[in-house]
Amino acid sequence: MTQEWVTKVIDEIAQFGKRDCGIYREAFSEADDKARNYIIELMKQVGLKVRTDEIGNIIGRLEVGDNKAPAVVTGSHLDTVPGGSKYDGVIGVVGGLAAILRLKERKVTQPLELIVFAAEESSRFMFATMGSKAMIGRSNINSWRKAKDKNDISFVEVMSSRGLDINNIDKAARSKDAIKAFVELHIEQGNTLVSKPAAIGIVDVVAAPTRLKITVDGLANYSGTTPMNIRRDALVSASMIVLAIQEIALEQSYYGTVATVGALKVHPGAINVIPGQVEMWVDIRGVNHSSIIECLQEIKDAVSTVAEGQDTSMSIEMLSSEKPVEMDKEVAKIIENVCDSKGLSYVQMNSGAGHDAMNMAFLAPTGMIFIPSYNDISHCADEYATPNDIETGIQVLTETLFQLAK
Amino acid sequence: MTQEWVTKVIDEIAQFGKRDCGIYREAFSEADDKARNYIIELMKQVGLKVRTDEIGNIIGRLEVGDNKAPAVVTGSHLDTVPGGSKYDGVIGVVGGLAAILRLKERKVTQPLELIVFAAEESSRFMFATMGSKAMIGRSNINSWRKAKDKNDISFVEVMSSRGLDINNIDKAARSKDAIKAFVELHIEQGNTLVSKPAAIGIVDVVAAPTRLKITVDGLANYSGTTPMNIRRDALVSASMIVLAIQEIALEQSYYGTVATVGALKVHPGAINVIPGQVEMWVDIRGVNHSSIIECLQEIKDAVSTVAEGQDTSMSIEMLSSEKPVEMDKEVAKIIENVCDSKGLSYVQMNSGAGHDAMNMAFLAPTGMIFIPSYNDISHCADEYATPNDIETGIQVLTETLFQLAK
Repeated sequence: MTQEWVTKVIDEIAQFGKRDCGIYREAFSEADDKARNYIIELMKQVGLKVRTDEIGNIIGRLEVGDNKAPAVVTGSHLDTVPGGSKYDGVIGVVGGLAAILRLKERKVTQPLELIVFAAEESSRFMFATMGSKAMIGRSNINSWRKAKDKNDISFVEVMSSRGLDINNIDKAARSKDAIKAFVELHIEQGNTLVSKPAAIGIVDVVAAPTRLKITVDGLANYSGTTPMNIRRDALVSASMIVLAIQEIALEQSYYGTVATVGALKVHPGAINVIPGQVEMWVDIRGVNHSSIIECLQEIKDAVSTVAEGQDTSMSIEMLSSEKPVEMDKEVAKIIENVCDSKGLSYVQMNSGAGHDAMNMAFLAPTGMIFIPSYNDISHCADEYATPNDIETGIQVLTETLFQLAK
Repeated sequence: MTQEWVTKVIDEIAQFGKRDCGIYREAFSEADDKARNYIIELMKQVGLKVRTDEIGNIIGRLEVGDNKAPAVVTGSHLDTVPGGSKYDGVIGVVGGLAAILRLKERKVTQPLELIVFAAEESSRFMFATMGSKAMIGRSNINSWRKAKDKNDISFVEVMSSRGLDINNIDKAARSKDAIKAFVELHIEQGNTLVSKPAAIGIVDVVAAPTRLKITVDGLANYSGTTPMNIRRDALVSASMIVLAIQEIALEQSYYGTVATVGALKVHPGAINVIPGQVEMWVDIRGVNHSSIIECLQEIKDAVSTVAEGQDTSMSIEMLSSEKPVEMDKEVAKIIENVCDSKGLSYVQMNSGAGHDAMNMAFLAPTGMIFIPSYNDISHCADEYATPNDIETGIQVLTETLFQLAK
């Protein structure tokens, strides 16, 4: 599987959900279905045995070596954020497939697997890495049952329209015996590798997102006739919270902690009605656990202060809060040796973004390989990876998988 | 038409678009259609000659007196804001119909008309009093052609689905010769009458809304990996503008000016993406024109300052800006005399809200009669009018129309 083949497959997948500005391939959307069906067909064509589990993870297996031995696994995801890039997740899927196929001719003793995880991005249902969470038996069924997207379509509904039953999700869990190691290839989504510069990033710690939903309740009233001094405008309070969160995160940025209000909805949202309610979603990341805790505490304090000062009640719902996850030191050492043997520059680094690898680390020794990302100058702010960097990443992945499976 | 009949008709109309929390009867919605069809049938049943004009205004005429003489006209609207009340607009329609029918037995020399104006509320297409604007020949066709609702459904599309052609809107314009006077009965939507207290408000000046759309362009980027200090978060800038507008309006509130950011949309609006763009809609009201101008200037200054400080570009689009409109002094005097003759307390007051009367004043001498509104204590904040206050308003309207048409 040549570099040209990889470029071609990435470009073909980029057609699914393509819009003027970025790719819209949200989890379990029609575009996501198309991309998934495309990869299932491709995996079958090149000789993988393919199955889909109870949450929709696609598992393609190359039965080489001792088929009863634990598999050496790679993979990533195909869903995107709204207006996402063609590389995020896709490089790990296509590069993972290329790596497995390149190992077909070499003597490996362990079966090889490519996993395309379902619903890695949280943008649709506000829960991240749902597929890999289900695979490690840590699905959050009670909350997932209540999850709805922007259009009020529930996760349960979406699953059922694809023949999946939320009550069966537990069956997607795999045993530790089944997997020897997991390695994920991914675009960096940051500027560490470009600014160093280095060809490869070897991930040390993956930051897990802490996520909150803050609901502000004010009083909806007619905008034309309600005097300014008696208003209880939920958007005014929400704006104060947005700025407080920005301030708090700036203070904590020394520890690499970041916080973002990415989504905010105003109700009723009419030009002539004072906002009565605002819902906002906050994403906090970092690799320093105590900095995240401090950030959280300060956000709670700000919420109390604003709620009291503005006479708008506020509630905070914790959607997820997980500790940063360390990658396996031995797998990292193997990746390092591969880079050395190829004369490639590399750097040990943290991942600010969450990844399926962060969950897979609970099942098996896990590593992550980053390749550089460049920011597109268009207003879509798409990230860009050069074909040569992708090829380098695939070569490092191939050799790492070989060392683990030989 | 008794007080009981009025209560019954208001309650029946309240069923169209009724939800758990308030009434959703947005302009040209299915619920609005139902309410409009209901009133058309009712008007026909009680003997009015009904026609619908080129923008969907319903005109019901009682051909009494000299049918060639200019009509004495009353009316209001049936559309609501999302989660609106059952009284806003409806009292003027049902009360207007009751008043006309009560005059059937009395000797009037002029024909009487009830108009149900289309799209009075701006919440759907961001343009207010579209029906009455079309009737006075001041429709804003170029902007209306581009208008879309939240679901991206265009005004043109919505009209055409109801057999109306935007190119014909000009034909809805009526001549000054056709109308002798216009009087609108409306709930106050404020607390002046309750706090005085007074039974009737006689409107002096109607504040016209000045409306802006502000678009903030930042840079969408992944929330997990973009350091705080290099972000260009459109929502952070937008929050600063929300607070600046609140501050500016508080300063101008001495002049009765108010400003509200009622709607705000975040793009792409995903929990893990830094907001790349925010659109926000601002509504400024007042009866003091120079205070509104000062408010506008200060908002523009704040936008420039934040745009520069945050490295996010911003643009301001003026959606509407009209001067406050004075009601006719002679019509006001007639209403005053009617109140005196009935021994009713009344107060001269301004209307912070815009009304169709504000447009009709360009066609004919126009007056407005307000009745008290009470705030519901539920979280829906619905306004409430007592059946007795409604009856008093109808009696004043009836007698005023009689004085104009006798």
